[in-house]
Amino acid sequence: MGFEGVEIFENDFLVHDLKPKEIKKIVSDYGLQISLFQPFRDFEGMPEPYRSRAFDRAKKKFDIMNELGAKTILVCSNTSNLAVGGIDRAADDFNELGEIAKNQNIFIGYEALAWGKYISDHRDAWEIVRRTNHNNVGIILDSFHTLSRDVNLDSIASIPKEKIFIVQIADAPKYNMDLLFWSRHFRNMPGQGDLNVLGFMQNLYNTGYDNWISLEIFNDQFRKDNRDVIAKDGYRSLINLTKKNEIVERTKIEKIEFLEFSVKKEDLDIIQALFNSLGFVKVGHHKTKNIILYVFGNVKFIINAEIASNEKNGKFNPYAFGLVVDNVQSTLKRCEALKVKNVKNYYLNNEFKMNLIEDNGQYIFLIDNNNNNKNWQSDFNFIDQKNQNLNLEFDHIAISVEHSTLLSSVLFYKSLFECKKTSNTDIIDPSGITKSHVIENKSKTFKIVINSAENDETLTGQLRPKKYISNIQHIALRTDDIFELSKQIQDLGLETLKISDNYYDDIDAKFGLETSILEKIKKNNILYDEDNEGYFFQIYTTLINNSFFFEFVQRNHGYEGYGANNAIFRISAQKKLIHGSRT
Amino acid sequence: MGFEGVEIFENDFLVHDLKPKEIKKIVSDYGLQISLFQPFRDFEGMPEPYRSRAFDRAKKKFDIMNELGAKTILVCSNTSNLAVGGIDRAADDFNELGEIAKNQNIFIGYEALAWGKYISDHRDAWEIVRRTNHNNVGIILDSFHTLSRDVNLDSIASIPKEKIFIVQIADAPKYNMDLLFWSRHFRNMPGQGDLNVLGFMQNLYNTGYDNWISLEIFNDQFRKDNRDVIAKDGYRSLINLTKKNEIVERTKIEKIEFLEFSVKKEDLDIIQALFNSLGFVKVGHHKTKNIILYVFGNVKFIINAEIASNEKNGKFNPYAFGLVVDNVQSTLKRCEALKVKNVKNYYLNNEFKMNLIEDNGQYIFLIDNNNNNKNWQSDFNFIDQKNQNLNLEFDHIAISVEHSTLLSSVLFYKSLFECKKTSNTDIIDPSGITKSHVIENKSKTFKIVINSAENDETLTGQLRPKKYISNIQHIALRTDDIFELSKQIQDLGLETLKISDNYYDDIDAKFGLETSILEKIKKNNILYDEDNEGYFFQIYTTLINNSFFFEFVQRNHGYEGYGANNAIFRISAQKKLIHGSRT
Repeated sequence: MGFEGVEIFENDFLVHDLKPKEIKKIVSDYGLQISLFQPFRDFEGMPEPYRSRAFDRAKKKFDIMNELGAKTILVCSNTSNLAVGGIDRAADDFNELGEIAKNQNIFIGYEALAWGKYISDHRDAWEIVRRTNHNNVGIILDSFHTLSRDVNLDSIASIPKEKIFIVQIADAPKYNMDLLFWSRHFRNMPGQGDLNVLGFMQNLYNTGYDNWISLEIFNDQFRKDNRDVIAKDGYRSLINLTKKNEIVERTKIEKIEFLEFSVKKEDLDIIQALFNSLGFVKVGHHKTKNIILYVFGNVKFIINAEIASNEKNGKFNPYAFGLVVDNVQSTLKRCEALKVKNVKNYYLNNEFKMNLIEDNGQYIFLIDNNNNNKNWQSDFNFIDQKNQNLNLEFDHIAISVEHSTLLSSVLFYKSLFECKKTSNTDIIDPSGITKSHVIENKSKTFKIVINSAENDETLTGQLRPKKYISNIQHIALRTDDIFELSKQIQDLGLETLKISDNYYDDIDAKFGLETSILEKIKKNNILYDEDNEGYFFQIYTTLINNSFFFEFVQRNHGYEGYGANNAIFRISAQKKLIHGSRT
Repeated sequence: MGFEGVEIFENDFLVHDLKPKEIKKIVSDYGLQISLFQPFRDFEGMPEPYRSRAFDRAKKKFDIMNELGAKTILVCSNTSNLAVGGIDRAADDFNELGEIAKNQNIFIGYEALAWGKYISDHRDAWEIVRRTNHNNVGIILDSFHTLSRDVNLDSIASIPKEKIFIVQIADAPKYNMDLLFWSRHFRNMPGQGDLNVLGFMQNLYNTGYDNWISLEIFNDQFRKDNRDVIAKDGYRSLINLTKKNEIVERTKIEKIEFLEFSVKKEDLDIIQALFNSLGFVKVGHHKTKNIILYVFGNVKFIINAEIASNEKNGKFNPYAFGLVVDNVQSTLKRCEALKVKNVKNYYLNNEFKMNLIEDNGQYIFLIDNNNNNKNWQSDFNFIDQKNQNLNLEFDHIAISVEHSTLLSSVLFYKSLFECKKTSNTDIIDPSGITKSHVIENKSKTFKIVINSAENDETLTGQLRPKKYISNIQHIALRTDDIFELSKQIQDLGLETLKISDNYYDDIDAKFGLETSILEKIKKNNILYDEDNEGYFFQIYTTLINNSFFFEFVQRNHGYEGYGANNAIFRISAQKKLIHGSRT
């Protein structure tokens, strides 16, 4: 998977039947080095007779390490109630252990556990190592232990790089809980959580450090997950942490250019009828293939009847989108570094060969900003079209992924593109929790919502692409005049999602809207929300193919959210469509 | 399921298509009352214009409540950043709202959220209610909000019972984390967690309170679980909280009397050979049925070849155990109150009719302590037997349950018997976490370990009874001389679980055992552990039928644990048996 070394966690070794030398050979046969043997607990500051026993224990472990071919051992700060404090006492213990280690050709790295009894801060661990003043004793830094306690990161830069024996890296969602519990259950890959791992790395690189960067992740979910996905994400997270200029930078996204739907030839009429009812207009046919281009304002939909032979497709589904990026070639280079799949020669025999990438089942076409944006349209013959009096923009796309690939999907977007996770919401579906992460670029011209449900009884779970090629769950299109748009789509016969009267009574009580506005949104099944800045309108279509839906939104006075407060009402209404209303 | 009322959580109502009056009718048709409408947020201490809007909002909700037939509304303490503090200001707001409520025939219950901005303690909420001094305004207590902040429980007894409008009850595992996060994700049924709910109830009953006791549980797991199990557990947890003498008390367990195995007739030879190799001796045959009694010291095993026709059985499996209790009739009465299944007439045509109960797939025979314990043996003809020079006792039984029934199983034992959950360990299986809860009676003559795995890749998950009637995973038998016992079973040809050499190197480093002892335990695959009190020996058998195993243990100098430190070694060795060792 691209890794160069492996830490041997002691318990994994202990349960193994093979002798240390045999394990050494296996590791070496895989082309790996053993970067660390760990952990060695409850060493420093022990009173007798525990002190002598700890030294005996260490000697025995050093013997085994030499058989294993492991040069460095992690000693974590003491958590034992028997331990006695004192920087100098600890330094004396490490100096004595350093002499033993020297004789056995072992290096000792001391790490401050965030919940250590006396030493819980890397600055104190460093002071002990500094006073120990022994070539075989250094410090081990772990981003979680430092970031979870908000230890000042500048302090890292003052440690000489040769005294940093190894650096362990982990991220985590920002929870306010017992540090040990948080660490044992919720760590995740750098970039998947909320900690300032990049800031930590920047300070580390300022020391000139160029030794191991190691992932140390404890996560309940990861234990159950697909190990290939976990390994891929771990590797990517390390790529993201490399020094500037080592690897081509993340790509800037300009905008979503189009959304492509796959369709079976016999269902071409149905999807075209749907697009017509959404207010879209047919503007072109592909010159050589059964591909049709529809447009509404700045939103382009492509219907592709060439790939629907794929068994995984339903009647028709959105399965890919096109992104305008600042440089396709450098994007592809970064894809290669990140092991993102480059689907070659997808549009065979086309004049304009678009690049297609794929990850976790998500297909993305890349379009170069430097060329004329319209180049890809050179494959199409254009036809006359009637004028549309409303504009429309892509607002955001929501995808629905398996719970086990939620963080993987977040990491994919953050690794490849210049974008950030801007929010993280739990949506309470009556059958379980749906987690919703929002990824946005800085200019907010690219916004993707990644939803995952813990179980399949939730709506998100039900819409998860078990039989569809795509994981696109809904497409939100932005208008400046939701009421005019609502009128148009009703005239065109589009069915919108019926929202309960009780919802509007509550909106009335909550926001005190003018009666005329309230009546209007109720009549048109428009949902309403406010944030500190502005207000928001939403209309949902009914479920299409029981797998995806459209949303029209209007953002007023800088509303920045996604109507998360309304999600339960949307979900409830959609569930009724699937199951029928229980009365 | 036995409940008398239902709280209407506002969002559940809002997403519903039916009008309030129609919902009122449904609730009433189910024979239920609406005990509460909730929550009403961010009311007290708001500055204008929010204050007026909050009053308007309340009036609208009161109208809806009257249509719904809900008399009481929960107003939770304000969490808004806009709110202004002050007991008297809040009391004034409530007095004004109380007048409005009075006119609309509504009662207002004020609850201190543990994370309220100014009011987070029920003592402060009560002071506001006291100063409000309005008949339509009272307090609502919630055990979680009080217990999570360790608020002195005596303070409850000073509230006049008529001012307590409703009491909500929840338990939770004792985690140290953000209160809101803890409350939203980890609450569970009273008796399933670690909070002092019984102490809370005792103080509540001291006020003379006799109004609603309501379960308010937010739990991620429960959302996914079987609703019948959740409802049953909720009901049981309320039965457990009833006042003294309302329901027959929990039963005292004296000991485990026997373990019963089901077997297919054609496999009788195999199971008897197994028991012989464990050192057990055949002592009797059932007078009329194909049932055989084996004994080793005080441990009795029953082989039942009469029920193996059940498709769910494998070749042979432990599926039930017999408990000596202080009173079978009162146990059965409590079973009835708790809705525990009483399997009637299980031993048809026997002289001694044993009572059998079942819950969550666990079968338990009940044997009266008042009668002669041996009565059930009157069904057997006894045969001559050779002497055994070692004694043996039941130490504990471990069952393996689905993750979703872990808490349900804990609650079952705690509800029916006088016993406690004494520990709660996470065992790190390489494929996921196995949760292990220990239930013990006071005298420790009954000990049961309930294991559940989050996924089926873990050993606990693999041993889960998908095709077996029983969930008994292992049976631990206690000896006073593990070395003599080890010799005997080896002479009898019993295969024990091979433990890795690396394990013993670590035991050596950790505990510094005498070389002779170390050699002896290593040679005999005996695992070792220490706690603050004493030390512990364990021998495991190999897996039997890929579904269960035996363990021999010796407890020295008051060791009280279960060798949890060794669990990963046992699991790893067993996994190798299932999958073959990967080298």
